[in-house]
Amino acid sequence: MNEAAQTLDGWYCLHDFRSVDWTTWKMTPADERQAAIDEFKGLVEKWNGTMENKEGSHALYTVVGQKADFMMMILRPTMEELNEIETEFNKSKLAEYTIPTYSYVSVVELSNYLHDGENPYENPHVRARLYPMLPKSKYVCFYPMDKRRQGNDNWFMLPMEERKKLMYSHGMIGRQYAGKVKQIITGSVGFDDHEWGVTLFSDDVLQFKKLVYEMRFDEVSARYGEFGSFFVGNLLAEDRIDAFLTI
Amino acid sequence: MNEAAQTLDGWYCLHDFRSVDWTTWKMTPADERQAAIDEFKGLVEKWNGTMENKEGSHALYTVVGQKADFMMMILRPTMEELNEIETEFNKSKLAEYTIPTYSYVSVVELSNYLHDGENPYENPHVRARLYPMLPKSKYVCFYPMDKRRQGNDNWFMLPMEERKKLMYSHGMIGRQYAGKVKQIITGSVGFDDHEWGVTLFSDDVLQFKKLVYEMRFDEVSARYGEFGSFFVGNLLAEDRIDAFLTI
Amino acid sequence: MNEAAQTLDGWYCLHDFRSVDWTTWKMTPADERQAAIDEFKGLVEKWNGTMENKEGSHALYTVVGQKADFMMMILRPTMEELNEIETEFNKSKLAEYTIPTYSYVSVVELSNYLHDGENPYENPHVRARLYPMLPKSKYVCFYPMDKRRQGNDNWFMLPMEERKKLMYSHGMIGRQYAGKVKQIITGSVGFDDHEWGVTLFSDDVLQFKKLVYEMRFDEVSARYGEFGSFFVGNLLAEDRIDAFLTI
Amino acid sequence: MNEAAQTLDGWYCLHDFRSVDWTTWKMTPADERQAAIDEFKGLVEKWNGTMENKEGSHALYTVVGQKADFMMMILRPTMEELNEIETEFNKSKLAEYTIPTYSYVSVVELSNYLHDGENPYENPHVRARLYPMLPKSKYVCFYPMDKRRQGNDNWFMLPMEERKKLMYSHGMIGRQYAGKVKQIITGSVGFDDHEWGVTLFSDDVLQFKKLVYEMRFDEVSARYGEFGSFFVGNLLAEDRIDAFLTI
Amino acid sequence: MNEAAQTLDGWYCLHDFRSVDWTTWKMTPADERQAAIDEFKGLVEKWNGTMENKEGSHALYTVVGQKADFMMMILRPTMEELNEIETEFNKSKLAEYTIPTYSYVSVVELSNYLHDGENPYENPHVRARLYPMLPKSKYVCFYPMDKRRQGNDNWFMLPMEERKKLMYSHGMIGRQYAGKVKQIITGSVGFDDHEWGVTLFSDDVLQFKKLVYEMRFDEVSARYGEFGSFFVGNLLAEDRIDAFLTI
Repeated sequence: MNEAAQTLDGWYCLHDFRSVDWTTWKMTPADERQAAIDEFKGLVEKWNGTMENKEGSHALYTVVGQKADFMMMILRPTMEELNEIETEFNKSKLAEYTIPTYSYVSVVELSNYLHDGENPYENPHVRARLYPMLPKSKYVCFYPMDKRRQGNDNWFMLPMEERKKLMYSHGMIGRQYAGKVKQIITGSVGFDDHEWGVTLFSDDVLQFKKLVYEMRFDEVSARYGEFGSFFVGNLLAEDRIDAFLTI
Repeated sequence: MNEAAQTLDGWYCLHDFRSVDWTTWKMTPADERQAAIDEFKGLVEKWNGTMENKEGSHALYTVVGQKADFMMMILRPTMEELNEIETEFNKSKLAEYTIPTYSYVSVVELSNYLHDGENPYENPHVRARLYPMLPKSKYVCFYPMDKRRQGNDNWFMLPMEERKKLMYSHGMIGRQYAGKVKQIITGSVGFDDHEWGVTLFSDDVLQFKKLVYEMRFDEVSARYGEFGSFFVGNLLAEDRIDAFLTI
Repeated sequence: MNEAAQTLDGWYCLHDFRSVDWTTWKMTPADERQAAIDEFKGLVEKWNGTMENKEGSHALYTVVGQKADFMMMILRPTMEELNEIETEFNKSKLAEYTIPTYSYVSVVELSNYLHDGENPYENPHVRARLYPMLPKSKYVCFYPMDKRRQGNDNWFMLPMEERKKLMYSHGMIGRQYAGKVKQIITGSVGFDDHEWGVTLFSDDVLQFKKLVYEMRFDEVSARYGEFGSFFVGNLLAEDRIDAFLTI
Repeated sequence: MNEAAQTLDGWYCLHDFRSVDWTTWKMTPADERQAAIDEFKGLVEKWNGTMENKEGSHALYTVVGQKADFMMMILRPTMEELNEIETEFNKSKLAEYTIPTYSYVSVVELSNYLHDGENPYENPHVRARLYPMLPKSKYVCFYPMDKRRQGNDNWFMLPMEERKKLMYSHGMIGRQYAGKVKQIITGSVGFDDHEWGVTLFSDDVLQFKKLVYEMRFDEVSARYGEFGSFFVGNLLAEDRIDAFLTI
Repeated sequence: MNEAAQTLDGWYCLHDFRSVDWTTWKMTPADERQAAIDEFKGLVEKWNGTMENKEGSHALYTVVGQKADFMMMILRPTMEELNEIETEFNKSKLAEYTIPTYSYVSVVELSNYLHDGENPYENPHVRARLYPMLPKSKYVCFYPMDKRRQGNDNWFMLPMEERKKLMYSHGMIGRQYAGKVKQIITGSVGFDDHEWGVTLFSDDVLQFKKLVYEMRFDEVSARYGEFGSFFVGNLLAEDRIDAFLTI
């Protein structure tokens, strides 16, 4: 039996991707459409209140390409709240015009590879990362991933020391992007189909490509990374919601 | 020819995942919706009677994310009863507003790796595990899995002694979660696409992640585990059904 | 060039899995539904006549779980007859309320690994297996499969002698289930996506799990078996058709 | 850099598989249905004219099982003509009642492994194979395939001499089926998802199984073959179109 | 940590594949159809203006086979513009009759394997390739791809020198097709599911097959290439739009 890395776990996280059924949306009278938009903006307003109270956070992005039209990323202290929020959205008028295309359930996770000693949950720097206020960056990138368990490339059979060393070098790459890319790792073992979700925020969309590409040459990704679908999007600022949905 | 592990087999099991077609549901008059809810609660009442008679058990959970909106887990002594229950549900009014998203057919299974000698079917502790009353835990986690048969990582080519030793160590991890996580293993060889289903119950959803993650570093999972989709949900207590479905 | 096993080939076989569109079915007036049921029972009656004339056979089972609601397994002397039967069903009233979910095209096959010398097509025991009357067993199990061709585990690169030896030992397991499980192997190389279909019949559904699980530890399955989806069902006796479809 | 096999390329080829939406078809008045059938037969008549002028060829087959109801295989000198034919079909009345289920784009290809010296495009035997008149055989079999590139089983890393030797022995199997099975190889590298399409014609459907199964034991298939879906069908002679579509 | 190849990045790129819902399109009155066509041609006119201003480029092709009916390839300086263009198309009348079938998000990329020293973004030859005017070639071929990371065939674990040498030899093949095939490589690490998109343009569709097939024997593809779906199409010149869509 190998030793599992200890993790710190923060807010629960739901990534909820939706396509708009534009044809039906256009067939709807303008006033009903506006009512649906207003109701949705009311939901967002409520989420803003939660964020102001530091009881959660969220982000809205439009997604490029056919995988989805927009994405809601929601952080909350409990799994029940995530469930309530998706159900409340599903019962809303706007939801009648959206098609669910992908979702991901996880929890904000910090690896304890890099920390030691003290109770990390009392450390304000750690707390800021476990219960993060999502930034209003211009771009988002999301992808789920696994560590490979295949023949000689089996991450989970590596000794802890080896994993620590590899992750340290991997983390060094990430640090070069400090200030350019904000990264939120969420763990999803037992919650969804991959082991982790990675959400990147940046004001320069090219940095996503540079970061992920550079990491791919690092042994942690090159030998041990398995990647799911990649989603990229543009910030859906609240004052852009009307324009996005107006016909 | 290698020696197969002996299993003990209890109640047959159907996991039935459904999404709600909220758009159509909302277009339905309130009194028809209430009639559909009441009919569904009548079904659950009947299942409760079966459970009181110790002739089966069941559990209802809402599912987080887009994989499903809710999940019914049904245990019964025969495959016919499972078939009857799903058909009865399919003919119900509520089913007209649900979309089947995933199901799993299996049978409660105890591995005989860990037992010896006596007739286990007469042992009350064994019986309680073969014919279990499902708990009303706050959270559920379900995933199907296989033992790997790939190159040098072929579980089914390992000698019985080796498998016993590995499973013993694997079981030790599970025991650390006694009192925190209740685990029901169901076998599905010959019944569904994977070899086993794993259903976990807990009042602390984070324990699912901790347990599955810790096990992933154990050789049984690290080298020999292949996992299907993971589903996580919140208890749908009967007095929450109305709120869940009310528009 | 390695030597291919010789096969004996009997009746062509179509497994046709369907789900019922219960919502539309329920919206149909009772007399139309009854007319659809009666027309379907007329088809089955015609198939019964074919079976009495020993010109084919068939079986009807309801399927547990969401993969399908029922399954028709049809055996006929020609591929044209299979095509005609599925088209006739597709044009029937009941078919308007069914959704095709899976099908499999194959031909009853006996491996000549185990026979020698004589013209097997004149042997009445062989004929009974090539042109089988399907039993009215309580349960059915169907799955398609391949022999693996992967790295060092390549069935088709093994010498004939080795394959014979492995298949002999594999067949020994099957014999232990004689009287408990009836097995029909159909070959589908060139006809469908896997190399074989396996259909098992039994009056004890647990025997499917025991048989398939025990075989999985045999080298033929452990190293060389690749399995598709598994379907399990309950006999849909003709006098149960009305009850199954009645709302 | 290894040496690529030279190929000779003939007519472009579209395999177009369609299911019939029988429910909607039946709801259509008989005279509209007949008009749709007549329009379709007019298209086929036009294609017959092309074939008589040796400017292309085509074949129509009904498909067994749920993968499709019928298949049109079209050969033409240019990619534009294939595109025009599918668009013309898509705009036809019958197409309103069909659901596209699979298609394959390729070009008739002869491997130059077996030829030498002369300009093969002037050889009438070669021309007859590059621009083939499709036979009216009773049965068709279609499947796409790749040559494997996996670990030690990498076709494209083998020296030309080795590939030639393997292909020669592979071709010997095919020759044993001369007169029983007609085989058309189409190349699809750069055109569709696999590297080749294989279309087999025969008056004895069992020969497809025998040929493909025998070849699977040959090293070219056993170690280097990767296969897509298999489709099998019965000739849809023009005088059978009415019967096929009549309700 | 291995060294990542440096890349030069140009315009962002969206490949947007659509099928036409011909049945609904035909049910639409001719004048509404014409209005939809005219509106679409207005969009294309606007894109032409952007191209004239060297602020982007685009290409329209009809696609052969069922994967799509047509494809729009759009190049723009920002991710926001791609998002705006797809949303504007989605809100158009024609979009009501199209079904999204595939899309790909990437950025024009030049590998720096082959360049040295100078600031390449000031080099006009480099600029012409980073911000390319798409040609009006008769044919297009698109496919996404990855470099393999599997056992001993792991591109990202190769030393930079080895990769450079392999890519140089790979590039030599491409040069033989200079004047016959124009190739645009777009990088999609962090943006979409594969690492690169390859778009080929030619006036001779057979050159796609020759080029891709020849490259497949080169070690870079043979050992290290993993390919997604292939799409092939015919130029949809603006004066052909009416004919394509007219019933």
